[in-house]
Parts: sequence; C-alpha cells; structure tokens
Amino acid sequence: MRLDELNWMDVEKYLQGNDKLIIVLGACEQHGYLSLLTDVKIPLALADAASQQTGILVAPPVNYGISPYFLSYPGTLSLRLSTFIDLVEDLVRSAYRHGFRRFLFLNGHGGNDPARQRLYELSNQLPGIRQAWYSWWVSHSVELIAQKYELKPSHANWLEAFNFTQVAELPAGEKTPPPVRGLLNAEEARAAYGDGSFGGYYQVNKSIMDELFAACLADVLQVLGELA
Amino acid sequence: MRLDELNWMDVEKYLQGNDKLIIVLGACEQHGYLSLLTDVKIPLALADAASQQTGILVAPPVNYGISPYFLSYPGTLSLRLSTFIDLVEDLVRSAYRHGFRRFLFLNGHGGNDPARQRLYELSNQLPGIRQAWYSWWVSHSVELIAQKYELKPSHANWLEAFNFTQVAELPAGEKTPPPVRGLLNAEEARAAYGDGSFGGYYQVNKSIMDELFAACLADVLQVLGELA
Amino acid sequence: MRLDELNWMDVEKYLQGNDKLIIVLGACEQHGYLSLLTDVKIPLALADAASQQTGILVAPPVNYGISPYFLSYPGTLSLRLSTFIDLVEDLVRSAYRHGFRRFLFLNGHGGNDPARQRLYELSNQLPGIRQAWYSWWVSHSVELIAQKYELKPSHANWLEAFNFTQVAELPAGEKTPPPVRGLLNAEEARAAYGDGSFGGYYQVNKSIMDELFAACLADVLQVLGELA
Amino acid sequence: MRLDELNWMDVEKYLQGNDKLIIVLGACEQHGYLSLLTDVKIPLALADAASQQTGILVAPPVNYGISPYFLSYPGTLSLRLSTFIDLVEDLVRSAYRHGFRRFLFLNGHGGNDPARQRLYELSNQLPGIRQAWYSWWVSHSVELIAQKYELKPSHANWLEAFNFTQVAELPAGEKTPPPVRGLLNAEEARAAYGDGSFGGYYQVNKSIMDELFAACLADVLQVLGELA
Amino acid sequence: MRLDELNWMDVEKYLQGNDKLIIVLGACEQHGYLSLLTDVKIPLALADAASQQTGILVAPPVNYGISPYFLSYPGTLSLRLSTFIDLVEDLVRSAYRHGFRRFLFLNGHGGNDPARQRLYELSNQLPGIRQAWYSWWVSHSVELIAQKYELKPSHANWLEAFNFTQVAELPAGEKTPPPVRGLLNAEEARAAYGDGSFGGYYQVNKSIMDELFAACLADVLQVLGELA
Amino acid sequence: MRLDELNWMDVEKYLQGNDKLIIVLGACEQHGYLSLLTDVKIPLALADAASQQTGILVAPPVNYGISPYFLSYPGTLSLRLSTFIDLVEDLVRSAYRHGFRRFLFLNGHGGNDPARQRLYELSNQLPGIRQAWYSWWVSHSVELIAQKYELKPSHANWLEAFNFTQVAELPAGEKTPPPVRGLLNAEEARAAYGDGSFGGYYQVNKSIMDELFAACLADVLQVLGELA
Repeated sequence: MRLDELNWMDVEKYLQGNDKLIIVLGACEQHGYLSLLTDVKIPLALADAASQQTGILVAPPVNYGISPYFLSYPGTLSLRLSTFIDLVEDLVRSAYRHGFRRFLFLNGHGGNDPARQRLYELSNQLPGIRQAWYSWWVSHSVELIAQKYELKPSHANWLEAFNFTQVAELPAGEKTPPPVRGLLNAEEARAAYGDGSFGGYYQVNKSIMDELFAACLADVLQVLGELA
Repeated sequence: MRLDELNWMDVEKYLQGNDKLIIVLGACEQHGYLSLLTDVKIPLALADAASQQTGILVAPPVNYGISPYFLSYPGTLSLRLSTFIDLVEDLVRSAYRHGFRRFLFLNGHGGNDPARQRLYELSNQLPGIRQAWYSWWVSHSVELIAQKYELKPSHANWLEAFNFTQVAELPAGEKTPPPVRGLLNAEEARAAYGDGSFGGYYQVNKSIMDELFAACLADVLQVLGELA
Repeated sequence: MRLDELNWMDVEKYLQGNDKLIIVLGACEQHGYLSLLTDVKIPLALADAASQQTGILVAPPVNYGISPYFLSYPGTLSLRLSTFIDLVEDLVRSAYRHGFRRFLFLNGHGGNDPARQRLYELSNQLPGIRQAWYSWWVSHSVELIAQKYELKPSHANWLEAFNFTQVAELPAGEKTPPPVRGLLNAEEARAAYGDGSFGGYYQVNKSIMDELFAACLADVLQVLGELA
Repeated sequence: MRLDELNWMDVEKYLQGNDKLIIVLGACEQHGYLSLLTDVKIPLALADAASQQTGILVAPPVNYGISPYFLSYPGTLSLRLSTFIDLVEDLVRSAYRHGFRRFLFLNGHGGNDPARQRLYELSNQLPGIRQAWYSWWVSHSVELIAQKYELKPSHANWLEAFNFTQVAELPAGEKTPPPVRGLLNAEEARAAYGDGSFGGYYQVNKSIMDELFAACLADVLQVLGELA
Repeated sequence: MRLDELNWMDVEKYLQGNDKLIIVLGACEQHGYLSLLTDVKIPLALADAASQQTGILVAPPVNYGISPYFLSYPGTLSLRLSTFIDLVEDLVRSAYRHGFRRFLFLNGHGGNDPARQRLYELSNQLPGIRQAWYSWWVSHSVELIAQKYELKPSHANWLEAFNFTQVAELPAGEKTPPPVRGLLNAEEARAAYGDGSFGGYYQVNKSIMDELFAACLADVLQVLGELA
Repeated sequence: MRLDELNWMDVEKYLQGNDKLIIVLGACEQHGYLSLLTDVKIPLALADAASQQTGILVAPPVNYGISPYFLSYPGTLSLRLSTFIDLVEDLVRSAYRHGFRRFLFLNGHGGNDPARQRLYELSNQLPGIRQAWYSWWVSHSVELIAQKYELKPSHANWLEAFNFTQVAELPAGEKTPPPVRGLLNAEEARAAYGDGSFGGYYQVNKSIMDELFAACLADVLQVLGELA
C-alpha cells in the first residue's frame, strides 16, 4: 500500500503491528529515449510489488534526485546535493517520530548515493533505527543476469527499458559507449553521450526484463525480511 | 502532459514553442478521513486538467511539504522549512537553465507559503523569469462557492473531499470547529483536532465539488493565460 | 518595559513572577512617503502600550525583515528568508533558556510570515512553550474599521499613516491601485507601485487612526491574556 | 540621520551625492548593572553624533549579537555565529544594491568580531566596496585615556557606564577582576563574574566619560573621512 | 612538490607553465592495527611519488573525512557530510581563482565519495575546469593484483598495510569477514568489526605491496597525463 | 604523539588515563618568502614539543584556515568562515564522543579567531568540556621578547621566520610597513603588501627565534597544566 491510499488512522493501525517503511528515491533526469522519471518508476514498481506481498507501506516517491551532470538535457530537474540529503533526513525523522524503525531505501539513481552518509549520521542519533539501502542496478542479481545474456548494464540502455519506462520507440541495435575521462560537466556530458544512453543495446526481449525485475524483487523481499 | 510521459527530446521540442511549466507543491500530511496525499492530489488534478487543455507541461509533484504541526498524526512526513525552500529553488533553477521562463506553482498546502519569499528572491536573480502562485482553496472562486452554499471551507472538511481524495467512508454530519489559540505544537494540534478535520461538514454533494473544481480550473487557466 | 531600560538583575526578578515576552518583528523597507521603519514603529508602539498596561517585557525590535520585492527602492534593507528564520529561532531559544515560556510575536510586516513555520518547528522541540502571532493589519479589528469607514487597507496607504510613522508631507487624495499579476521582482515592483503605496487614500483623519490603534491594542491585550 | 526618520525618496536623493552608510552592530546581553542594550546604545550614540556632523546616514541598529557565554544571565538574547554573519551580509548586499559603496561598521560588542571575516569575503565579491570597522573600546584613543587616568577598561565596568547606559544605581568602589582560564561556558561565566562586571571601578567622573566619548567620536569622524 | 615547501612566489611561477593540482582527500579513522591516518598516508604517498616524476604540485592533505560509522572507535574524527563537501568546494574555488584549472583528487577514503557530486556542481559553474577523481583501492589495477594473488581487498586488511601505514605489529593469519546487513551505526559497526579490519589477511609480502603501489602510481600518472 | 603514529587501540588506552587533546588550527596562505604552510608549521612544532614533554595527544593539523584577504596571492587556499567553524565543531564533537574532555586549540592564524565563538556555543552543549585557545603570536611572551629586542612582530616578518618555515632565502634589512585603512579585499591587499610581509625585519638571529619558541612552548605547557 502506498500512503496516498491511506489516511492517518490507517497508518496508526499499521504501526501497531509493523514498523517498516519503504522510501523510494528517484530522479527526474534524461534517460535517453526512456521516460524522464525512469529512476522513480523502476524502484516504485519494485516497492509496489514488494508491498503487495508483504503489506509493508510505501512512502510517496521522492521524485527528484542529484543529477548535476545531466543539466544540459532538457527536463532534467536536479536537487543540489545539500538539498537532497536534508530532504531524506527530514523524511526519516518524521517517520521515526511516528514509530517507524526499519527503513528500506529503494534507490533508483546512482547520483543519490551520498544520502547514505547522511543516513549513517542519523543512525548515530536515532536509537533503534535500522536502515537498508538497495540500488537495484548494482545488485549481484543484475550482474548475474547481465553475464548470463552477455549484456552490459548501463544508464538508459536495455537495463532500464522496461515496458513501463518506455515513452517512445526505442532504436534497434547497439550503441558504442562513448569514451569518458574525468568528471564531465553538463555540457560535456551532453556532447559525449548524445542521445543520453551510455551505450550498449537499447532494448532486449521482454522475457529478460521480466527475469530482471523478478530477481530484483526477490532481492527486495529478502532485504525486507532481513531488516530485523 | 506530465514529464514522466516524456523523454528529454520531447521537452527540447516543447521548449522551442513554449516556456511555461506547472510545478505542483503538495504535502504528505493528515487530512482526517481523507488521503494523506490530499494536498498533492488536488493541485495535480488541476494541473493535469489544465495541461490537457493547454498542452503546458507539468513537473513531477513535490510530494512533501512543510507540516510540523501535524507530526503527531501518523503518516505525516514533513520537510523542514529550510529544506522545502531549497528544494523549490533547485527546481526553478534547473528548469530555468533549460529555457523555462514562466512558472505556475500550483500549491496544495498552506504550510508551503514561505516558498513564495524564496521565489521573490529568485526573481531578483534570474532575468526574464515570470512566476505565479495559485493556492486553490484561498481563491476568490472558492470563497464565492462557499458563500453560495453557506459552507465554511476548512482543512480536511468537505472542501477537500473530492472523490479522488477519499480513501475511507466519510462521517455524515458536521463537526464543531475546535477553538484554537496561538501556535499549537504537534501534540496540542492532535489533542485539539482529534480526527484531523478542522470542522464543518465532512462532505457535500458531488455536484458542488464538481463546481468547485471547475471554478478552480478556470482560475488556473486564466492565470496561465496571464503569465506573459 | 523594554529590555533596554533594564539590566539582567531586573529580568531575573521579572522571571520569578512572569514568563511572557513580546518580540517585535519589523522590516526596513519602502513605505511610500512614510518612514522606512514603519513596520517596526507600529508593532513597537503597540508593544509599548501593552507593556505599560501589563508590565510584560518587550525585547529589542528586530529592525530587519524579509523584503526582497522592494529592493529597488533605496533604503530597503532585506534579510534573506533563511537568515530571518534563523534569527527568530535564536531569540526564542535564548529567551527560553532563561525561563521565558509564553511569547507574543508582534509582527509588522507581511513578508515575515514564514517565521511562523519555524516557530511551529520550535514548538515541537521546546517543552511547555506557548507562542502567539499577531499581525495587526490583517486582524478582524482592522477589517471592521476599514469596512466602517469604507476604506481599503493596503501597504503604505492610510492604514500605516500614523502620526509616528510620518516623515514627510503626505499627498492628498487617493491613488488607484496598480494591477499586479504574479510575483513581481524588485524592478517590476518599483515600476508597478511608483511611489510605493499600493493605492487608496494616503491618509485619513487622526481620529480613525486612533480608533485603529486602540482596536489593535485591545487585540494585543486579549492575546496576551489568552497566552496561558 | 537615521533611516527611520526618512522615506525611500530621501535615501534616493542622498545617494545622488553620497554613498556612505553607518551600520551599528550591537548586542542584547548582560552588562552588570548597566542596560542590557549597552552594546547598542554606545555605538548608536557615536553614530548619531557623527551623523549630525557629517550628514552620513545611519542604518537601524542590529540589536542582537553573538553572546553565547552570557546566556546564563537572564535577558541575554544571543544569535548564533552563523546567523549573525548572514545577517550582516544581507544588510551589506541590500545597501550595495542601492548604490551604497562605503560602509562604516560601528561595533559595540567584542563577540561580533567574526563578522569581519564575512566582510572580507564580501569585499572579494562586490566591486568597488570599501569597508571600515571600528570597535570603540579597543581603540588607541580609549587606551590612552585609560592610561592617563590609570583605569583598566573592561566589560561592564566604568568603561561602558555612560549616563545613557545606566538603568540602576551603580556600586561605589572597585571590583577585583575574577581569574579566568580557558573558554568558560555560560554557567561558568556567571559563576566567575557574579554581577557581570569584569572588574575594576564601576563608574568614574562624568568628565572622563565625556572625554572618552569625544575621543571616540573624533576617531569615528576620522575613519569616515578616510573611507575614500 | 608539496605546497608547504613553497612560498607564493613559487606557485605564481609554477602557474605560468602549469595549471594542474593534486588534492589529497583522507580521513582520520580506525584502520584496525594500522595508523589512524592510513587514508591520508596512502594517497599522499602516491601524490608525492607522482609529483616527483611530473613536477605537479600537491596541496596540503585534507586530514579529515566522512566517517560516521566508525565513531565508536576512539581516534576517529569525522566531519559531517555537509562540512566535508563545503571544504572541498572551498579548496577548488580558491585554487581556481589563482589559475589552477585541472585537478586530480587523490582520495583515500570511501566515505568521501559524496564530494564527487559537489564537484559535478562546481564543474557547471567554473568554466574551463577539468577534474578527475582517483580512489586507488577500487581501481582496476588493484582488482587485477588481488585476483592474481587470490586476495580479497578490504578495509584495514593487507590492502592498506604498507610499511608506512603500520604503527604496531600486525596479526598473522586471516580474519573471517563478519556478516553485515544494512547500514550499521557506530556502535553496531564496532560490535561487528571488533578490531576494525573487515577481514582477510592482515598482511602480505612487501613485494606485493610494492607491486600494488607501483600499479596505482602508474594509474595516477596516466590520469594526470589524460587531464587535458 | 600525533594520531598518525597510533591506531585506535592506542587511543583507547590513552583515554583510560587522560582526556586531553591538542588541536592545531592552521592556514594555507601567503607568508611572503616563507612557506605557505607557516601557520600550520609553527603551532604544530609547539604541539609536538609539548606532546613530547607531556604525552598529550596531537590531532592531525587542520591545514586550511580562513584567509579571504590573501586570495590574490597564488597558493592561498582559504575556507569560508562558515566551513571552518563547522569543521572545528565536527572535530570537537567527534573527540568528545570518545571521551576527550579537555581541548587545547593551538592556533597559528589570526583569521581563524571566529572559531572561538563556535567553541563557546559548543561549551553550552557538551557537559564537562573544557577548552583553551592559544594564539602564540599574540601572547604576552611574544610581546615581551619583541619589546626586549625592539622588534615589531607582524605577519610574515621575522616573527614567523623560524628555520623550519623558511623555504627560500630571506631579504636582508627591513621593510616599511605599508599604510592600510579599512578592510582590504584580496586585490587591494596584494597591491598594499607586495611581497606579502607586513613590514619590519625579515629575519633575526636564530637565538632570538629559539628564545621565542621556548617562551611559547612554556606558555603551552602552562595552559595544558591549567586545563583542569
């Protein structure tokens, strides 16, 4: 269940038997031919699926992340690093106050990683809190599937091309990953990446995507189970 | 169109002919028997409707607002004032960089008002920007309808009880508004407001709600038209 | 009594029998033909008068507020939103430490409203604190007097033209309120408002002003009485 | 002239012939038997006197400074270091925007010194700005007078006991300065300093105080003259 | 050359022919039996060696990093995430002002990674800047050597046990890596990791360490060469 | 002992019998012909010498301070005021958590003084903490030696020309101190100070420098002894 389907009385009831909360951290940034909200849609889909099986609540997604390097691609709306980590802290503190103690952060965007350090800081301040962080695309599960099918997972390539992230027709074939050195600024990144994909196949068989999703969902369920 | 239905190429095309953007500011907070996301759902519905008629783009909603006074109601997830205003600034700066110049902030939550002052600060820094702010529930349109039907608009009463914000059965009848003095802290607010509604009828005829929505939508369209 | 007439021993004695403090929040900004400190002078006059009747202490006025939109009028000295709310927090925390528990914020400037949200945040952190906020010009008392004399209260018009805020001769007659849409930046505000008044009569009979002041003072005394 | 005696048109006229501004930085903190606003009153008196002779404008005093060590003395209202320096920056930036270029900071409180570093930062950002800082009590003039009369200048002793800072009868005689080592916290400071004076004579002949004031005023006039 | 061996005239001369600077980012945190400054010593040794071959200047090391999770190990002195990223920004802005344009960040501590996002932000603000980031222990070179000798690189195991980081005798043998789930707070981390090593061999032959160092140095030289 | 020669177990042992820590605050800024790290080297040498006699631990030096006014001298790397005070706070809080209670700040740079105010703030928050601050060059000891040899101590003149701060040959003779009024920005400072010395003799007999160092070391030992 997402919080938007509930009122506060429902949450109060929930907290009598459970103290887990899933927080989806996303981004609004270029994903080549895919939706600008790809980094929200994927972890949110995982969260919804995990919630359906476990009944664990899902907070409204954080629709914006840290994406300074993509700011030359129209539609990328990026939070400053400092803003994002404050936002994540505020969510944790609010939920902790109500009695939530075990948090799973389902992260959809690599640029959001710095929030982990703020979460460590919080863990020293909020007694009894337990936090886990899952970035699906760097999981061992994804690595195995990529190896199995000899595919290279990368930003805005087949890896993120689920049917629910597609908003336009995808190119056939493969893109050569552009060579990149050092930290590119927004203009350099656009010059280097062109259509925004980091290279590789733009899409693969839906069956692979289903396998991928299922594997990540299994991960999520396991992490939720271990959050003890 | 919402950004999540588009990729960056779509936005680039859009910007060749339009520089307007609707930003929905909401909250995740108690609304009595209504959805915790009521303050997102209403302005987002207005944004979608206005977008359908005008083609103006809608950014992903800001799902969290400033709600310190409701933090004793489970499910309320509040940003600090300082976090929220930084977040709004970041969105404006990102979009401005792409070429967006005219912004309509469709605000769903009274506690978010301080962001207006940050927007004034930004207007002194970003040449050519034009910003409008619309808080639907304090509009003249709502005032007129409330007078017409002799209803008092208030937090979490009939005013916000659209069919799309209802997640539970609503009480029949009317609630006496509790007397409140000074700035209540979260615990005092819960003690004072009980179920969370500020009093008055919990619901009214759907036809009134439709009239209300239509009047606000007309306002939004007018403000968008005037954003020149 | 204002704090500047006292030493710390006096305050220590005071705190043995009282824990109320009046904090005046003002601004240094254009007020048309009136003093740049109009927004300090009016609430400070109310504070002094209320203090005389009740003995409640008055902290030194905060001479600066949030006025980004008037920064093209020379003499306007504006604090950033973030600075102002930190300042107000610091005052409350300092006074709370000494034993003050009940605070009345006598606000003279609409732009300062965001501080209310910070005060709500503080109310969740400082046990036993009680805070009230009074912005005299939006009070029901002022509304009634305005209706009675068929006057429209507005920035830098008759509403603020007390004898103690006048520093130059005031124009006779009435100014047509300029039409304003959206959030004006500082240059646009100056272009729109010209002499700085938002329109209406520049001055009215001193008897009306006295009535106005007396009504607001009565409000202040009532709020102070209710701060329990 | 203080800004509170002027409207914005007056300041606009002033700026056609002058770009100097005096900013008074004070504190609201214990001064033994003297007024809690002693650190405002002295530099403000100097500013007023200098203004009378030169016509240079005086901004409204900053009534609060950085006084963490006196927070166990009731009535001390202290800003955090971070707040104070932001506040000073905001005043400079606002005035600079109007065309003020030469600033004299008349400081009344030693704890405010860190603002100097922020002013240095600003001087690298605002072309053409000229800033001077005068802390009257550490001036060479005060040193000479103290030597001449074999007096030791110190916090809340004769040094600050002008007729306009006295709010109670002052003790006769001399206080032995308490031995102090390291940085005392607020409670330790109160335990060490008792009545709040740092020791020495509580008061001296008015003629010495007049000589002191005249010497400092001469300093201020000289610094203003040199601000070129 | 390190900056501490130079005066400003030397740097001015250097900048006439070179605009590269190496900035060493470290940490002061537990490293099991190894020095608390291990994360400074290793990248600094690499920087010195690279500087000797290239003449590129080395800024004074940042001796403190982001280590909240080790704060239950005495001697760990951690900066907040927000402090660290501001510090790194200040160094870059200062050096950029002098004419430095190409920066290599030699990072010794995984917890410092969030600074990369701030560097991306800066790259959008400082025209012509080029930045590269090298975290030696996650390099492909280290991976290869670890595979070659069938060793697992980990915090405070053989990987960091150079002769210049050893301050005590190291245990013989191997430690079983403790199982860890989720984000541990400082107390949990100490309970889990005991002596502080993350497991594996505590030390290996000096010849392997020399090979490791040489490989990383080669990386550094290559990155410096590519910084064009 | 410096922390870099120890591992965490050593610090844990130390804390069983001692709770003192020396923190060296420096700067990386122009010092005329002397090392850019002069402000680190001097207090660090004092710290090392004091540590050798007392066994008190020395934290890694803070290699950067607040030096905005020297930013036109290449090699000056300055922290913002706000960054520096946060950094100092973080060090104190980290060490306090481990059980350190008595801190001596050995400061090498005048621009770092604002940190004292943050330390006062901390002293109100951390029970049992004791902090002392020693800026060697403004000590009474230095004043006496300067008087004895009729020398004027000043930035980057003989005062700081220890053998361990020299990185180039020093000019013979004396420099006339440039006249300076007000707060100079970085460019003005460079124009005024030329080679960077504030004037006076560039160097004196090593015996005087030894006497100076010995006197300051005696001060440091006394302050450490009094930190009770």
